[in-house]
Amino acid sequence: MTERRFAVADAPEPDHRLADDPANRHYAWDADLDPALTVAPGSVVQFDCRDAYDRQLPREPTVDDVAAVDADGHPLVGPVAVEGVEPGDTLRVDLLAFEHEGWGVSTVPAGESGGGLLPEEFPEPHVRAWDLDGTATVGGEERRVARFAADDAPDVTVPLAPFPGNLGVAPAADEPQSTMPPRAVGGNMDVKHLTAGATLYLPVEAAGGLFSVGDCHGAQGDGEVCITGIEAPMRVTARLDVTDRAIDQPQFETGGPFTPTGRDEPMYATTGIAPDLMDATKRATRAMIDHLHERRGFSRPDAYVLCSAAVDLKISEVVDAPNWTVTAYLPESVLA
Amino acid sequence: MTERRFAVADAPEPDHRLADDPANRHYAWDADLDPALTVAPGSVVQFDCRDAYDRQLPREPTVDDVAAVDADGHPLVGPVAVEGVEPGDTLRVDLLAFEHEGWGVSTVPAGESGGGLLPEEFPEPHVRAWDLDGTATVGGEERRVARFAADDAPDVTVPLAPFPGNLGVAPAADEPQSTMPPRAVGGNMDVKHLTAGATLYLPVEAAGGLFSVGDCHGAQGDGEVCITGIEAPMRVTARLDVTDRAIDQPQFETGGPFTPTGRDEPMYATTGIAPDLMDATKRATRAMIDHLHERRGFSRPDAYVLCSAAVDLKISEVVDAPNWTVTAYLPESVLA
Repeated sequence: MTERRFAVADAPEPDHRLADDPANRHYAWDADLDPALTVAPGSVVQFDCRDAYDRQLPREPTVDDVAAVDADGHPLVGPVAVEGVEPGDTLRVDLLAFEHEGWGVSTVPAGESGGGLLPEEFPEPHVRAWDLDGTATVGGEERRVARFAADDAPDVTVPLAPFPGNLGVAPAADEPQSTMPPRAVGGNMDVKHLTAGATLYLPVEAAGGLFSVGDCHGAQGDGEVCITGIEAPMRVTARLDVTDRAIDQPQFETGGPFTPTGRDEPMYATTGIAPDLMDATKRATRAMIDHLHERRGFSRPDAYVLCSAAVDLKISEVVDAPNWTVTAYLPESVLA
Repeated sequence: MTERRFAVADAPEPDHRLADDPANRHYAWDADLDPALTVAPGSVVQFDCRDAYDRQLPREPTVDDVAAVDADGHPLVGPVAVEGVEPGDTLRVDLLAFEHEGWGVSTVPAGESGGGLLPEEFPEPHVRAWDLDGTATVGGEERRVARFAADDAPDVTVPLAPFPGNLGVAPAADEPQSTMPPRAVGGNMDVKHLTAGATLYLPVEAAGGLFSVGDCHGAQGDGEVCITGIEAPMRVTARLDVTDRAIDQPQFETGGPFTPTGRDEPMYATTGIAPDLMDATKRATRAMIDHLHERRGFSRPDAYVLCSAAVDLKISEVVDAPNWTVTAYLPESVLA
């Protein structure tokens, strides 16, 4: 049995458990899947989620270990059908607790084939394991933090703010759908503020809703630029219910944290100014990687990983035609 | 003389003042302009900035008053040449203090010709004056806030976080350049976190740098979706210096506030999920306007204005091809 190290919030006693078992796991969104579980509205369910690498990585992985991972899609736990839920309804998901196992990993894929925001600038793969068991004084307060596990890695302290990268309901489609892109029904949204205490609303397209969750992150920057957060296996506890609000795409309530310390703190920021939002986003991110490399001593791959784990991308303005401003924010507190 | 109501930070005694005078004002970026002032590096300068409507609006403006404004470009105060500064250098601007006059205004332009993120959905113009003199308990703390001035307007309390929407140095160009788009040298960046205490770095393209500033906002949401923040005349105090860091586009240090209360607080969020960042941005904003209209009782034009003044757009992920996630965050504390 896996030791559970850290609950972000007290998990209530669940009504149901979905263990880490093949019968409770799927690797594509599919409205034709039989539910792993059917529950009454208002039920609390515990989901034992693998990391995005399907528990195939050792604790100290090499890039060869990452290349050898054999998984076609994110491992998702579910689907859970909620009794009485029909297409057109809205599922309400209260995210109650996350428990990690003390370990996480971030990877940079090898060039164009692997994705990420700047693949042309990172032709070589990179991997960093994270230790999630430590604490540090961040902004004057004792916090649970993620640190790079390897001795040769830079000393960073990224406060934990766990959330599921991939959660949603089954899309109406005749064929199974990839777990990679998010959709109107949710999925791989990678919204970092879906933390413990958040309430997510999802538009339902399939009978029962068919909710699944996985791909948890110990922390992530808005943008997830290198294509991974701090990827970690986690147990997720959530309450599933139905609500009558009409929505087209996911909406949610959250209490943050909106900065690593949960309050104002010094940040370094780089702007990207360009007539295309994607180009502006790339410029801001490139400038932040340059900043971390040239002025803070990071290798470029480690800088890319830190951006993905802790730097937030905001759209400063999207109206001053023909140029938009995207800004990347680095909280100084993560640089130990 | 205009009464100055509120200094966000104690302004140091300036070395120089640029009063609200035609000789100190220009409406285009132009490397050929004679400096209004030449200063030694490290000098503190006070800039008396008009609002974006060039002080042509009455305190309680109608849409006809807004339509009658005759201004070709933002009124900018400057340019200030810094002795010894050359193209290739980097100007350092310490933003020290902002003093407003108790009044601000937000406008929605009329349809496609006027700009904004959603012109096709707002064919009619709209205007709201703001009272910047009040206080309110926001998140348990007494704060200086902006409120809609009209009796028929919804009751909102937007904590003040003043900054200049438009500040930069002269671009290298043979002809005068519009003040509307931001550029590599800065300008109309509308970066809301350039608050008092921030330090901005600007790449210099013209001898002396030729720094100018204007278009101040009492507060603004990331995105500035309706094309105006809380537009307000302000006195800006800044220290101008030169530094040796090499940058391609503006960078800065800031202490926020990153939420209206300066710490974590409840927010409502709407996602926009789409294969194009601009489309995702529009979807998230549309959903937030719907939310404010349908569930919080705002007219659509007032909802659009509130989004522009207080709702932040973040890029949640820009790597889960082919769909990106943009999320709009509304702090509940601004809904009094």
